[in-house]
Amino acid sequence: MNSPPEPCAEGRPPVITLTTDFGVGSPYIAAMRGVILSINPGANIVDLTHSIPPQDIRQGAWALEQTSRWFPPGTIHVAVVDPGVGSQRRIVYAEIGEQRYVAPDNGLLGRLVVRASPIRIVAVQEPEHWLPHVSATFHGRDIMAPVAARLSLGLDPERLGPAAGDLIQLPWKEALVLPGKIQGSVLSVDSFGNLITDITEAMLAGAPRDETVRIVCDEHETQGIFRAYSDQPASTLVALVGSGGHLELAIVDDSAAAMLGIGPGASVTIAW
Amino acid sequence: MNSPPEPCAEGRPPVITLTTDFGVGSPYIAAMRGVILSINPGANIVDLTHSIPPQDIRQGAWALEQTSRWFPPGTIHVAVVDPGVGSQRRIVYAEIGEQRYVAPDNGLLGRLVVRASPIRIVAVQEPEHWLPHVSATFHGRDIMAPVAARLSLGLDPERLGPAAGDLIQLPWKEALVLPGKIQGSVLSVDSFGNLITDITEAMLAGAPRDETVRIVCDEHETQGIFRAYSDQPASTLVALVGSGGHLELAIVDDSAAAMLGIGPGASVTIAW
Amino acid sequence: MNSPPEPCAEGRPPVITLTTDFGVGSPYIAAMRGVILSINPGANIVDLTHSIPPQDIRQGAWALEQTSRWFPPGTIHVAVVDPGVGSQRRIVYAEIGEQRYVAPDNGLLGRLVVRASPIRIVAVQEPEHWLPHVSATFHGRDIMAPVAARLSLGLDPERLGPAAGDLIQLPWKEALVLPGKIQGSVLSVDSFGNLITDITEAMLAGAPRDETVRIVCDEHETQGIFRAYSDQPASTLVALVGSGGHLELAIVDDSAAAMLGIGPGASVTIAW
Repeated sequence: MNSPPEPCAEGRPPVITLTTDFGVGSPYIAAMRGVILSINPGANIVDLTHSIPPQDIRQGAWALEQTSRWFPPGTIHVAVVDPGVGSQRRIVYAEIGEQRYVAPDNGLLGRLVVRASPIRIVAVQEPEHWLPHVSATFHGRDIMAPVAARLSLGLDPERLGPAAGDLIQLPWKEALVLPGKIQGSVLSVDSFGNLITDITEAMLAGAPRDETVRIVCDEHETQGIFRAYSDQPASTLVALVGSGGHLELAIVDDSAAAMLGIGPGASVTIAW
Repeated sequence: MNSPPEPCAEGRPPVITLTTDFGVGSPYIAAMRGVILSINPGANIVDLTHSIPPQDIRQGAWALEQTSRWFPPGTIHVAVVDPGVGSQRRIVYAEIGEQRYVAPDNGLLGRLVVRASPIRIVAVQEPEHWLPHVSATFHGRDIMAPVAARLSLGLDPERLGPAAGDLIQLPWKEALVLPGKIQGSVLSVDSFGNLITDITEAMLAGAPRDETVRIVCDEHETQGIFRAYSDQPASTLVALVGSGGHLELAIVDDSAAAMLGIGPGASVTIAW
Repeated sequence: MNSPPEPCAEGRPPVITLTTDFGVGSPYIAAMRGVILSINPGANIVDLTHSIPPQDIRQGAWALEQTSRWFPPGTIHVAVVDPGVGSQRRIVYAEIGEQRYVAPDNGLLGRLVVRASPIRIVAVQEPEHWLPHVSATFHGRDIMAPVAARLSLGLDPERLGPAAGDLIQLPWKEALVLPGKIQGSVLSVDSFGNLITDITEAMLAGAPRDETVRIVCDEHETQGIFRAYSDQPASTLVALVGSGGHLELAIVDDSAAAMLGIGPGASVTIAW
């Protein structure tokens, strides 16, 4: 994505995004914003999403992988899906591709390495950059928000703590590409009820798009991979490559998740 | 609304608002924000609403008509309720009243002409202002967001494409004003469960406000048009002219929609 | 919380937060933002929360008390939970601690005085600072938003109206501290389903934290006050002092509210 020069950009602090499982209406989000603005009154804070299901690290990892890459280079993404808060789990700062992240090291940043290798990982350990009083249950507000605010003011990440090794990875079931067949599964359901799978456009390179390709999800089946929802009539089950580069199953003008009763984890097989 | 001179306003980019049917927690909203900020890091992006029911162009048109007029002149409103994405439907840039809009031409901008005539309509056709890669399923991110970002940086709308003719209009059932009687319907339900009708304050010019006026909605009836909810005791069905200039039916301190089981489309008759 | 000097802070307008019972997706929020931006295009507007249950002044008061203190000194908090809109209830401007508030005087600001005494209270009465046309049903948009916008531009609060007396207080049942026992209740439920009580850390000064302390909520019981959720295994009922300084009851990795069927008002007793 091109970023043309813009006169006011010099001196403008980087964007900070927030990804949490707090729920969209939660005042906890506001507490994090307040802390960031108390340290950097010029911070530009954007919600990535607050609708990650409680403690669902995988859905958080998926949202970060699909969405953080659309932000300007240097954006600081703070992600708080943190069931282990108060335990010995690490908090890390990571540079991956052109983006920066502050998050618990519990797998939340694990999907990002699919697209780009981490350039730098730092263990967040120096309390001088945190709030003076750190609670045992809300490190998003007390550690991650102030760290992001100080980074947005130019703090050198090396001052956050020592260099750290690899990010923790959750085991992910990956789609299996076979001759004439791909076996995958539903990764996520979007707000329209579209079923987004772990089968990527690259995996589909050898597959035809016409009606000779069969897509089976649970006991439901459709034929052909289309270009747009509007290529098929309303209420039809349609397969297409969605805007994130993954195969998705949709019911035109309706919710596939609700109508078919399908959610994350359901098997999806393509054969031709 | 008066906008007193403000020292920093010069050089400040116009506000960009987002109206979608993505749902408030959707990461798709963040992807649009990321694209806009990648092109204009100084963009001031405000959510108009993301709670339009999926593909409900009429509710989107209503939200735009009721809400966009409260923004500063020159605000750029991006609206994405777009069931026809990927088909031949046009995307348009429109100047209506003092506001600017970027949206699919599917009726979404249709209600705005009730208040003011379009000053300029342009077909959005020049790909040089879009993202380099345009998906078939998310033109909000790939076309409308970058177009809005470039407009906010001062791009001349004429460069977006050729001048276009009239906006597409969905058929709307309009309230019928008769001697001593108005026949209308419920247009929308707000988050309090108040029933907002298509009967405007202007239509009510000849109607009394006292108990000689009867308002009937479905099988429910009330008398008098009041000034405020608090003019009647709790749990009373009350009619008043709401803050958007439309007759509305409310149950004091409760939800009329839930208690009466009424939604958009229900008939409303006023007689005196 | 420390607020280090920041080069761009001079001339930067104070943050304006919004707290309402409109629901997160409501276009009424956008109307308030539009009005503020029409008066101060440089306003930095942040959502505190829009998920206060309709007309629930107590939950609004609680959210303000818990969250507004995390914002920079001088922040202007606009709170609209206003069942009495259009009646004779006052609108007030208040300075409490280092924060500023604009709200109906109906108890919404009442909990803030627990932490700090009001420094100044002004009755908002001078229409010259409001929108030219004031509706009877939406003073958040027509009075409070423009007043906040003008305050953010430097308007002297004395010009809003005459000095006013005490804020209206709703009766609040307070926790009772006895020898070896505290009798309190659930104040609020957060988005994780954690039950937040009116028993504060200060009240717990004399209580042990080990298993000799028993916490009873409704018919449910647990022993010990822990430091973090992760100190106990999944699905365990755990008591701890939450990030807001209040005793809370949680079920590890699950929703206590849903699993126990408990909400605001339930009794909570601690004994040792």
